[in-house]
Amino acid sequence: MTAPDPTVAELSEGEILSRILGRIGPSGALIGPGDDAAVLSTPDGRVVATVDTLVHGPDFRLAWSGAADLGFKAAAVNLADIAAMGARPTALLVALAMPEDTRLSFVEGFAQGLRAGCAELAPGCAVEGGDLTVSETLTIAVTALGVLDGRAPVLRGGARPGDVVAIAGDAGHAAEGLRILFERFRDATGTPIPVDRDALSERERDAVDAQLRPHPPIGLGPVAAIAGATAMMDVSDGLAMDARRMATASGVSIDLHAGALGPDLDRALTGGEDHALLACFPRADLPAGFRPIGAVRADAGAPLLVDGEPFDRRGGWDPYADWDEQRG
Amino acid sequence: MTAPDPTVAELSEGEILSRILGRIGPSGALIGPGDDAAVLSTPDGRVVATVDTLVHGPDFRLAWSGAADLGFKAAAVNLADIAAMGARPTALLVALAMPEDTRLSFVEGFAQGLRAGCAELAPGCAVEGGDLTVSETLTIAVTALGVLDGRAPVLRGGARPGDVVAIAGDAGHAAEGLRILFERFRDATGTPIPVDRDALSERERDAVDAQLRPHPPIGLGPVAAIAGATAMMDVSDGLAMDARRMATASGVSIDLHAGALGPDLDRALTGGEDHALLACFPRADLPAGFRPIGAVRADAGAPLLVDGEPFDRRGGWDPYADWDEQRG
Repeated sequence: MTAPDPTVAELSEGEILSRILGRIGPSGALIGPGDDAAVLSTPDGRVVATVDTLVHGPDFRLAWSGAADLGFKAAAVNLADIAAMGARPTALLVALAMPEDTRLSFVEGFAQGLRAGCAELAPGCAVEGGDLTVSETLTIAVTALGVLDGRAPVLRGGARPGDVVAIAGDAGHAAEGLRILFERFRDATGTPIPVDRDALSERERDAVDAQLRPHPPIGLGPVAAIAGATAMMDVSDGLAMDARRMATASGVSIDLHAGALGPDLDRALTGGEDHALLACFPRADLPAGFRPIGAVRADAGAPLLVDGEPFDRRGGWDPYADWDEQRG
Repeated sequence: MTAPDPTVAELSEGEILSRILGRIGPSGALIGPGDDAAVLSTPDGRVVATVDTLVHGPDFRLAWSGAADLGFKAAAVNLADIAAMGARPTALLVALAMPEDTRLSFVEGFAQGLRAGCAELAPGCAVEGGDLTVSETLTIAVTALGVLDGRAPVLRGGARPGDVVAIAGDAGHAAEGLRILFERFRDATGTPIPVDRDALSERERDAVDAQLRPHPPIGLGPVAAIAGATAMMDVSDGLAMDARRMATASGVSIDLHAGALGPDLDRALTGGEDHALLACFPRADLPAGFRPIGAVRADAGAPLLVDGEPFDRRGGWDPYADWDEQRG
């Protein structure tokens, strides 16, 4: 007899899969989960594909993130990379490596979070395949696939002098949430403790939610493409670092307006993990959801300027440099 | 100044990526590595997609597997899932999570192994995207994508009574290699030690190679599809377990001929990780590379028979049940 909430070590892979498959929602694929591979429709003869990994420790703490939060975030961060190409996400493949003592309820909650992330952020996208294995370190690798509906992909290297630089989504909000978690929800030894949401103001709750359960504007990726975006990328490592990458790829300088970046300029420039869409448009009439934050200039000797001055401080999240041994 | 062989913690993600990108070979994609996502051609409007994970500990030991072996195996096991659909692999996306003290030379060797795996097993397939992150547990999640070139996918549920059951590739060879590694290349405490190839017979070397650097018959997946295979799957968990899955999905019984499975029947039936292709054909004239090993029967009350007798022993690799704490 199995316990009411058995560990994954007490179950076969088939038993765990059957519990997951009931929770990820209907397949939209030609061939969905259950065979050696999924078969997905790509009507215009192209598929967009990306992979990203969340690792227990550097990327999340279980005291702060519930299983459903993790599933939601794992979906969101990968959907954002598809959207940043101007594409519409159609499928996720999820590789979940977990410790033997992981409870079935965790796997079920994680699957529900994946489903909720797809439903809220990218309707029509579903989990169409995956892999379960054991590991001492809980690791979530998600591959997202999408389609371009006949459009050209929007690359990061297409920004042209004179373009308006715009953003959809937050900059610095998720980092503010992480700061709140580190400052307020650790015990005396530094170990993460559960979040007491009642102890947070509404603004603080929003920031913590942006960190634990981000809602990047997935639907605005295709909108930007249709509106003629010349360049676009997902802001995962902080606005400064990612704008610099875009400028370098495009052979231009990006000049951000400090006044457009809110009261905490440093956090807006260096805070990562918001998964906002950074895009350049040739015209000032931006599509709804995007707001102007700067202008593209001919190469001014530095890839990134703020109010005309070179901004070369390191900023944003570098997984190697920012690795923190503290688990939880 | 960085050391001659720095750790990944001493380098930026961009520095590591630049070393990898020089080693994975030319991109065959519309948009290859370097943007938010890759864009791949899918000329017939469908893409085949699968993901599989290798975890340090349960799936490999670093004393036995070199970096290039690991890259090769990570490619091979995922290419096999694409081939098992009757598809031709076109791209890999590789998520590599590694400890901070991992040497750059390891990452470079791993990339070279990925490239060699694609070149030897699936020419035209390349690494088109990926993700690097830190983890206490070295973890490799590979997504493989492929195309069907206008054909229907070959599913595991299509076997029909009267079909010939056939296999391309080995059954039990990789398990024999694992047995040799466990018996001969561990020290007195059970810790894995490097393989001394000179101490092995040619047959033993082949078995160890089948475990560490498998060569599944990727090109025979499309060949089987063209030849009219009614069902096909990748034998990753042992012939008995996977044949049972095929029979159950098809609503039939599969009757294997013991005489066709070599001198060690038990190893052939239960040894996993060979990634052979198990396929059913309506005719006895099999395509080159496949050999007959049995017949499909109407449901005989058990999914798997051997010489007409039900075979219901558990066999093959179950990652949960077979987890072994011993690292190396």
